Order: sequence, then C-alpha cells, then structure tokens
Amino acid sequence: MMSLRMTPNPQLTEDGRLRHLLTLDGLPARILHQILDTAESFINADTGEVKKVPLLRGVAIFNIFFENSTRTRTTFEIAAKRLSADVVNLNIGTSSQSKGETLLDTVDNLAAMQANMFVVRHSAAGAAHLIARHVAPHIRVVNAGDGRAAHPTQGLLDMYTLRHFKGPIHNLRVAIVGDVLHSRVARSQIHALTTLGCPEVRVVAPRTLLPRDMQSMGVHVYERLEEGIRGVDAVLMLRLQNERMQGARLPSAGEYYKRWGLTPEKLKYARPDAIVLHPGPMNRGVEIDSEVADGKQAVILPQVTYGIAVRMAVMSLLAGGQT
Amino acid sequence: MMSLRMTPNPQLTEDGRLRHLLTLDGLPARILHQILDTAESFINADTGEVKKVPLLRGVAIFNIFFENSTRTRTTFEIAAKRLSADVVNLNIGTSSQSKGETLLDTVDNLAAMQANMFVVRHSAAGAAHLIARHVAPHIRVVNAGDGRAAHPTQGLLDMYTLRHFKGPIHNLRVAIVGDVLHSRVARSQIHALTTLGCPEVRVVAPRTLLPRDMQSMGVHVYERLEEGIRGVDAVLMLRLQNERMQGARLPSAGEYYKRWGLTPEKLKYARPDAIVLHPGPMNRGVEIDSEVADGKQAVILPQVTYGIAVRMAVMSLLAGGQT
Amino acid sequence: MMSLRMTPNPQLTEDGRLRHLLTLDGLPARILHQILDTAESFINADTGEVKKVPLLRGVAIFNIFFENSTRTRTTFEIAAKRLSADVVNLNIGTSSQSKGETLLDTVDNLAAMQANMFVVRHSAAGAAHLIARHVAPHIRVVNAGDGRAAHPTQGLLDMYTLRHFKGPIHNLRVAIVGDVLHSRVARSQIHALTTLGCPEVRVVAPRTLLPRDMQSMGVHVYERLEEGIRGVDAVLMLRLQNERMQGARLPSAGEYYKRWGLTPEKLKYARPDAIVLHPGPMNRGVEIDSEVADGKQAVILPQVTYGIAVRMAVMSLLAGGQT
Repeated sequence: MMSLRMTPNPQLTEDGRLRHLLTLDGLPARILHQILDTAESFINADTGEVKKVPLLRGVAIFNIFFENSTRTRTTFEIAAKRLSADVVNLNIGTSSQSKGETLLDTVDNLAAMQANMFVVRHSAAGAAHLIARHVAPHIRVVNAGDGRAAHPTQGLLDMYTLRHFKGPIHNLRVAIVGDVLHSRVARSQIHALTTLGCPEVRVVAPRTLLPRDMQSMGVHVYERLEEGIRGVDAVLMLRLQNERMQGARLPSAGEYYKRWGLTPEKLKYARPDAIVLHPGPMNRGVEIDSEVADGKQAVILPQVTYGIAVRMAVMSLLAGGQT
Repeated sequence: MMSLRMTPNPQLTEDGRLRHLLTLDGLPARILHQILDTAESFINADTGEVKKVPLLRGVAIFNIFFENSTRTRTTFEIAAKRLSADVVNLNIGTSSQSKGETLLDTVDNLAAMQANMFVVRHSAAGAAHLIARHVAPHIRVVNAGDGRAAHPTQGLLDMYTLRHFKGPIHNLRVAIVGDVLHSRVARSQIHALTTLGCPEVRVVAPRTLLPRDMQSMGVHVYERLEEGIRGVDAVLMLRLQNERMQGARLPSAGEYYKRWGLTPEKLKYARPDAIVLHPGPMNRGVEIDSEVADGKQAVILPQVTYGIAVRMAVMSLLAGGQT
Repeated sequence: MMSLRMTPNPQLTEDGRLRHLLTLDGLPARILHQILDTAESFINADTGEVKKVPLLRGVAIFNIFFENSTRTRTTFEIAAKRLSADVVNLNIGTSSQSKGETLLDTVDNLAAMQANMFVVRHSAAGAAHLIARHVAPHIRVVNAGDGRAAHPTQGLLDMYTLRHFKGPIHNLRVAIVGDVLHSRVARSQIHALTTLGCPEVRVVAPRTLLPRDMQSMGVHVYERLEEGIRGVDAVLMLRLQNERMQGARLPSAGEYYKRWGLTPEKLKYARPDAIVLHPGPMNRGVEIDSEVADGKQAVILPQVTYGIAVRMAVMSLLAGGQT
C-alpha cells in the first residue's frame, strides 16, 4: 500500500461539491443521492436505454489502466463517449512504468497533454488518492479500482440497482457474500449501504476470507450462507478472486460451491422477491449456480447497463463542478 | 468445435432479409448479389475510393476479437467509421475469458452496454453462430472468422474482386490453391462461387492439406499446380498457415514453393489475362513468388480496398434490416 | 540497419515543400522555422493551451508502431484528433509482422485501406525512409523514431521549447548530456541546433556512450559534466537507455549518477537562468536528480505540451502540401 496522508475531504471542493471520486468511505449521503439521481436522468424511462448527451463536449478524459480490465475500461469509454467527451485509452502496464518512470511522472506527462479527467485503475491501494492530491486543481480523478481498497463506481451502480428494483436503501436488508477479504467491491458496497441508511448489512464468508476489521464497519458477520441470507431483500454476490489468493485459504472450488455457492435451494432462505447481484465476471458453478445466474431473481445484466449511466453521472458531476 | 444445433436459416429474417452474416454456406444468390451491389455503391466510380456515408449514425458496433488480428479488425473498424457508426474495439484474449468467464456471459455483458452489432473473431468453429443464437433479436452478428469454418466477408470481397475484374462469376473458371485443410477462407470462397453459379471450381493442394469432404462440395481436386490452374480465369492463392499446422504435413517450405508456389512460369498455365488473389498476409517465396505478387496480374491490394466496401455493405444491410 | 539508397531530398517536394518528415538531417532552416511558427499558431497565447482546429477533417492518419511506445503514440493521436483527422492506431509488433509478412507488404495493405498519412515507429534505422520511398505519391510519412537514427518531432519540440524560453537558437549555447550513443533524440537535436545556427553545441557523455562520429558533426565533446555545461543556456538531458545497452558500458547506475547525474550542485555550473530539458521517461536518481527535475529551471512538462503543437504543425504542413 502506498504511503499517503489523508486530508479531511480530498473528494469535495470547499463548497461541498464532488471534486474527485476516490472512495465511498466518508462521502455524504447527499452526494450519493445526487449521483444516483443524475444517473437516473440519463436513462430513458420508456425504453430503459442510456441516452447520448452533449454535456462533456471538448472535455478530454484519459482512461489510465495500470491493471488490465477490458470490461471496466470499456464501460468508462462508452460512458465518456455518450457524454460526447474525447477519450484516450492507455494501458500503462506495458508502457513507461516498465521503463522505470514513477507513477506521478507518468501522470504529469499525461496532464501536460491537457487531460481534464483521469479514470485510474491500479493494483496498489491509494493510487488514485495519490494522483488526486498531486494533479493541478482543474483536473478530476475517478478511481476505477485500487488494490483491495475501493471500487466506488461499482458500489454506486449496485446502489442504483438496489434502489431501482427494491426502493429506498434505508428499507432494505442486504447480504454481501463471498471473498470479502480480497474485494474492493465489498468495501465500497458496505460504505455506500451504511451511508444510505441500510438498517442491516450482513457479510457472509468463510472465516479465512473475512478481513479482521469487519465488525468495526458496522456489519453483521455470518459464516453459514443459509443463515446469512435468511430474510434479506438482496444478495450481493462477490467474485471468487482466484487469481488474488495467495496460499491455500480454501479447501477447493468444489467445496466452496457446496458451502457458499448460491444455488436455487439456498436462495430460498432469502425473501421470495429478493434480487441477486454480481459484479462479474462470474465463476459459474463456484460462487453462483447457473440456475440462479440466469434466473428471474438475477439483475446482473441490468447492473451493467446502470453502470454506464452511473459512470456518466460521476463524470458529468465532476466536470460540471470544476472550480 | 462447439456444440450447436442449426436452425434452418439463422442468418435470415422471416421475410428473407439478412439478419446475421455467419457463413456463406446456404446464403441465397440474391443476398450475395445484394451485398456486392451495395458495396459497389460505396465506391466512387471515378476515383476508386471508398465513400464516407452517415448511414449508421448512432449505431454501436463492438469488434470482439477472441483471436488476434490487427488487419481484419482494422478493416472492420474503418468500414464502421466510414458508415459513421460508433466503434468499440475489444481484444478479449487478454481479458475476462482468461478470468474464466464463459463466452456467452461475456457477450451478455457487452450487449448490456447497448451494443447493436457484434463483429466476432474466434478460434472455435461455430462461435459466431452460438452468439447469434443467444443474443436478443435486435442485435446483429458478423462472423469475422471462426476456426477453420468460415470467413464470409473475405469470401465476399473475393467475389467482388472477381466480378470487378473479370465480370459475372457464372462465366469464370477459378482455382483455389494451397492449404485448403486449415483455411476458412477456402470454405467461404467455395460456397460463394458455387452459389453464384461458377461453372468450374478447382482446388489445388498437396494431398495432406486437402480435407476429406472436398469432392462432396462439388469442386474438382488437383494435386499438381500446373494442371490445376490450366486455363482458369482466376487463381485464388491461400496463405500457408504455418502457425496452424500440427505435425509434419509438409516436407519443407522450400519443397512446398518448388511444387505449389505460384511463380511466373507456373502462372503461364492459366489464361493470359487471369488474375491472382491472395487474402494476406503473404509468405513471399513460399506460396507465392514476389514477381507474381507484385506483377500486373495480381489484384491483391484492390482486394483490401474492396474489403472495406464489402464490410460496409454487410453492416449497413444488417443495421437496415433490424426488425 | 536496413539497406537504403538515399535520394537527395526525399523529404521535400520538387518545389521545396515538406513531403515527409523522416530526419532533421539536411532539412533546411526555412522548413524548421515554418514548423515552429505553425506550432506557435496552434497555442493559445493567453492560456498556453493547444487549440482544436478543423484543418485535417477527412484525412486518415495511421499510427503504425512496430515498437511499443504508449507516450509517443498518444501524443500523435491527440495531435491528430486536435486537427480533426481520423486516427487508426496499430500495434504491429503483435500482428502480421509476427506472421512473416514483410514491412512493405504491411504498409501496402494499410495504404489500400486509404490511409493519407503514416506515423511510423520502428526499431530498425531507416524504416520510415524505406516506407516513404515505397508509398504512392499522395501518402505522407512521419518518422516517430527509427532505431538509433532519428526522432525528428522530439528534436523539433526541443527547439520549440528552447526558442520559447530562451529566444532565438542562434544566440544560445547548449549542452546535450548522457547516453548519446544509443540516442536518436540526441542525433535529431544536434541536426536541428546546427541548422538553426546554434553557435556552440556540446555533448557530454562517458567515453563509452559516445559515438565515434561526434566530432564530425560539429559538436564539442566533454567527458566531465561540470566542464561540459559551464556557462550554457540550456541543458538537454538524455534518458539512460538501460534497456538498449548491451554489455557493461557503465560501472553502475549509482556511479553514473555520481559523475553524470544532474544535481542542483552541478547545475550551478550552467548559467543561472539556464533551462533543463528531458525527453522522458526520466530515471530519477540516475541521469537526473529529483530536485532538478521538479525545480524551477526544468521545462520538462512544457516540452510535452509543445510536443502536441509541434506534431500538429508537422501533420498539417504535410497534409496541406499534398501534390
């Protein structure tokens, strides 16, 4: 983890508007609602399609991905183009970084190419914060995932999906299930749910995939899936981060599926009208059964569509809030 | 090869218009002529240049390449941009697929990003069919090459080139020369030539590079090059797919050149005004001699230009035929 | 190095206008001034920002990079887009070249896709010349770096930076410091400085990193840094091309820093108002100390911004000069 001193609210301008989107931790409910409402305005109420709007014409958005992710990069690219912004995509993994240049030198160079906004993915927690603190005041930064720390636009699109299908978050009981330890998605979900007044946030995970600080985050911890999702309005599945795990924290994929894989039988413990979310890509037959993934309680594909609208909302609010 | 059940005409709508372009096998002559005529309308008759037209403004075309091909991907990108479509390029080889996501989950995710059309290249035969059968009815699929099965836009651009330089296909004698066994190009060429009434389609190949089903496709098989191209109007060379061959089907590149490489001497066996095509990239000195490749009978570079127009024609017909 | 016969002025049309930009060697001062003046017209005098202009609408520019360089490729992409050109990016390292296609066949194919201009980076010296001699007369070629030979747009942006901060080149004393042997940047800088009448061009390098032809290029050679930069108006640092060096031409990075690394102490030997340039990416603590890199004499980030304007100037002059 990179060393960083946190200023009180690096994400907000002095008059309380959104300046960067780095984490949902500490972001006021007012801002979260503003993002979700703005996202809603970008979706055609009749067709469910995302609109194309000329809001960011002439704004240069640089997608700088130090960690490869075609899917997330593509959603940001599409969102930026639907706002009529100019987009430049950079896979930095293969570039200057490998030539020994520092992260901040790379960023300074891209800023000198007259970028207005950086969308940053990096394997190191705190990378987007570091960049946000470093850049000139007129430049905006969006965290598209930093290490295990945060993935705020994913957390936001999940809130959008919950609100769309189940109404206000403060009426919902929600369970997050899976590899919480390695998941920046889970962290962003918990911060958003807590801020939006969710009365009961549960975490379900094998003991070895549970971070130590969970209790202090105000969540209820369960080891058994059936118990953890009993009576909830929504099950937020996590991807089993096979490629992230070091050493043998789990018996086997088969054993994991048997105990924590979401099957139709286990889903019955949740409310009958409960919805199932997943950030993708799914490991079918590991953390989620195909019958659930393709079933009528799953809202996994709407999540993707709302992800475009939410990213448009974030970028347009940031660009509009330039001081 | 992926398992797939074929519906009678998955490529056509109920009223007989083009819905997807997956293979030239079974596509009616009427549709082939429509594509070639549309392509012709995109070429400026005076300059030979491909026009820019606003036909697909607002249409989102996703190039999803599970197999790397800068050249083919670029021609589709250029064709889509000349139609004023929005293009998103994805190299999936390095992305979600490597994270264990299924092909159809990847496609569903991209569809949820509001794609109108997929251009698909995949190393598995049947991949584009699988996707076409899976997607929502308003989404169009173009096969940009699947395994050894089909490469329909290449077959079509070859037909365009033949027609442009030599007149109607039903008057021509044509020889396809080379690594037929591994060639999706050859399969698409044979289907197109047969459908368009070519009275004599010949295949020239070493016995070890000839698939067993050749005779049943209605083609004449030759092992000696001189004999196979005697009197033909056009020689359609294939690339020697070195990287595809497993084991030792050939003595050596030098030996291949000696017997099946198209030299100026051997080309004399064809008609004096015969033309020479090649899908590229060429192995000079292996399947084709540089003197032929650069000679006045070669129409290899016009093929590339016509390829843009043909791909524009396919995409505009698909987009216009939305039901 | 590729074999090539040089025609007298392959870069100029018969009436003396810029046809290709391949090297600054032999390019008349008149052309250099024209490029710098055009670049200046693209920069907003009040804000220092690069303008967006519709000069190259409908012009198709292909960035073909046989050698990976996200940074340089991005600056050309941005410059082309600010001229309203259509840009196609191709990383050829992973494509047809690996399938055995020749360089010129690749270029012919791309030209058949109706490219108007190629921006070429290649690891082989002379690659851009070879392409320029080969393509049809209406196609323009810009060398974006060929082997150790030339990097003309980098040389030009350095001249722009010198002129902007220090006035006319013919009044300046300039030192180029570092790995001259492996540096195409140094070669282009020397040619530009000499042509523009710089009265004193110095080169400072360890003996093992100095090419043998240095004296004949009209430069003064120094081995000690303090001596080499004494009294100069500008220090042009070079990147230590670690990845290019074969064998042990240097004792160690630490030893290099001690003797040739530009520290605040050593910089005092230059004029007090001397500026420091670096083409990036920087090796901090090797060829340049962080205090200098981030200090007020450094103009390293303005170089990047001017690089966009200079590349716009080159491309617009080439496109405008079509015959």
